[in-house]
Amino acid sequence: MMNRIIAVWLFFGGFAMNTAFAYDWQALPDKAPEPADNPTTPEKVELGRMLYFDPRFSRTGTVSCNSCHNLMLGGDDNRGVSMGVHGQTGGRSAPTVWNAAFASSQFWDGRAATLEEQAKGPVANPVEMGMGDVEEAMDLVRAIPGYKPYFERAFGTENPMTVDNAARAVAAFERTMITPNSPYDRFVKGDKNALDAQQQRGMNSFAEVGCVSCHSGAAFNGPSLPPGTGFFMKFPTFTDNSYVEQYNLAADKGRADVTGKEADAGLFKVPTLRNVALTAPYFHNGSVRTLNEAVRVMAKTQLNRDLSDAQVSDIAAFLNGLTGEFPEQTLPRLPGTPGWTLSESD
Amino acid sequence: MMNRIIAVWLFFGGFAMNTAFAYDWQALPDKAPEPADNPTTPEKVELGRMLYFDPRFSRTGTVSCNSCHNLMLGGDDNRGVSMGVHGQTGGRSAPTVWNAAFASSQFWDGRAATLEEQAKGPVANPVEMGMGDVEEAMDLVRAIPGYKPYFERAFGTENPMTVDNAARAVAAFERTMITPNSPYDRFVKGDKNALDAQQQRGMNSFAEVGCVSCHSGAAFNGPSLPPGTGFFMKFPTFTDNSYVEQYNLAADKGRADVTGKEADAGLFKVPTLRNVALTAPYFHNGSVRTLNEAVRVMAKTQLNRDLSDAQVSDIAAFLNGLTGEFPEQTLPRLPGTPGWTLSESD
Repeated sequence: MMNRIIAVWLFFGGFAMNTAFAYDWQALPDKAPEPADNPTTPEKVELGRMLYFDPRFSRTGTVSCNSCHNLMLGGDDNRGVSMGVHGQTGGRSAPTVWNAAFASSQFWDGRAATLEEQAKGPVANPVEMGMGDVEEAMDLVRAIPGYKPYFERAFGTENPMTVDNAARAVAAFERTMITPNSPYDRFVKGDKNALDAQQQRGMNSFAEVGCVSCHSGAAFNGPSLPPGTGFFMKFPTFTDNSYVEQYNLAADKGRADVTGKEADAGLFKVPTLRNVALTAPYFHNGSVRTLNEAVRVMAKTQLNRDLSDAQVSDIAAFLNGLTGEFPEQTLPRLPGTPGWTLSESD
Repeated sequence: MMNRIIAVWLFFGGFAMNTAFAYDWQALPDKAPEPADNPTTPEKVELGRMLYFDPRFSRTGTVSCNSCHNLMLGGDDNRGVSMGVHGQTGGRSAPTVWNAAFASSQFWDGRAATLEEQAKGPVANPVEMGMGDVEEAMDLVRAIPGYKPYFERAFGTENPMTVDNAARAVAAFERTMITPNSPYDRFVKGDKNALDAQQQRGMNSFAEVGCVSCHSGAAFNGPSLPPGTGFFMKFPTFTDNSYVEQYNLAADKGRADVTGKEADAGLFKVPTLRNVALTAPYFHNGSVRTLNEAVRVMAKTQLNRDLSDAQVSDIAAFLNGLTGEFPEQTLPRLPGTPGWTLSESD
């Protein structure tokens, strides 16, 4: 499987590829991979869900993981860039949490190798949850007595309420946030009516045009690589077009901000296309408002292809077929702060 | 029942009352009252739950009903005053949504007669959800195609997507957000072990000291009155104490802001005490951080009583016994905005 993907991938560079029928279309597994040092357990998932939805350990008590990575929506916030504490905004669009477990690195610039590492980032970020550091946030969690039994059940009674364990719980929960059984998945498993005629045309175009050179694999985010390896592409690759200025695509240095290497300027993680119909607006800076325009821009900036309106519509229709089934879940009850408040009155 | 409550109520004025055993303690009904013109149906409740949790029709796409009236917590936000769009804050503390269906008026100043009317307020408020008017918010709801079938199922196919119907759905949902079977309820129904000895002492003190003169009835928010009547009390009543300045209790004109009558200055709706242990910080301005201090301040400012530390602890223990059972609910899936964003990129 890897060999076939890499064979396709090596052809990347703006050439049309006739891979529509040879291409190795993969269904999403029913289970996400999990690291040996943090096996998923029901107790971790339960605790992780609570922490994921709890806004009280943000600086203002108003921002939880779910604020920007909304599980009731496409796993993001339908905004250009997210809004954190005190109405502040950052420079990048929130990636979806759905199927993040299938990525080999996290954040647009891949600065976290794992979901566990990622989970700690937004808590301390001054424009996201706004805590000075994660230990300070953890002090707030520790101040809520009702959390203790959940940590103990998930991690044992020996000092369970640590930042690392909180991150492990959130990561374990996120590994259950996957969306199999999309029309696409049912189609590749043999239900030939799961995608309609336009979607099937779009599927062929998606491969022929060359989208699959980067958006390969079961999650459409590139080949399966060891955690932390990351799969990055230069965006925009072709800059001789009006989109670069129109959507301000070249301003963000991407991966170079992490590595400090000029060669990494403009490299971004290839994001999953699962549920992409639900995650507008698009791109790392959330500058493109519609999926059709995103398809058009990507073809031009990454493959130097001018798609016809029909091709754009077909591919967008196919991408709508990547919307999966969302696991039903119970709204968590968060342990109270009985009789007092965690927040300063402000 | 009304007679007995009013008999107690007439004694109000700072006198100790020996009503502990004669007092008519009431359990919370299993069902909230509903208006004849908006009977609760499963279809309305389902739609109302979705609208309640959907942040997309606030100005920034970040604030839903649940942001400030968090059903995972005590039905409020554990903050002094709530934080709306663009990090703005208002002047009053978010009241709990739990059991709001048992109130005869809504908002601290009673400016809405019904839950239906209340539901429209925060949407248009510039420091809450920040839409100019509710019709503009409704345009965003109408722009989400997936909502239409839910409105049709709840309200029929004849122009169902109206502001009034959205408010009816939210109100119907809120009427299911009630919390019966607290330890107190089980106690008054005959389980004499449901409250411990301290809580039972606190229950007697609560009546004897005179808290029941206002916090009467099944929801501890006053007598059952016709919708829109409201049950208001002057707060603070006694101003010759240090608390008034310390907690800035006299700044807000309360009900007078609605009626324009000087006689209504400082009148506030008597809030429910159900789940009060989970709704810190306290009072209309969220100025008091702990339940014990809130009990002490109320006794002094409303009844001119200086409680002992033991009395305060006993009453607070009793109030902890008013935390009910929260109905388990499924996290709603919100209909997507397939392929586009509702928000301007900002």
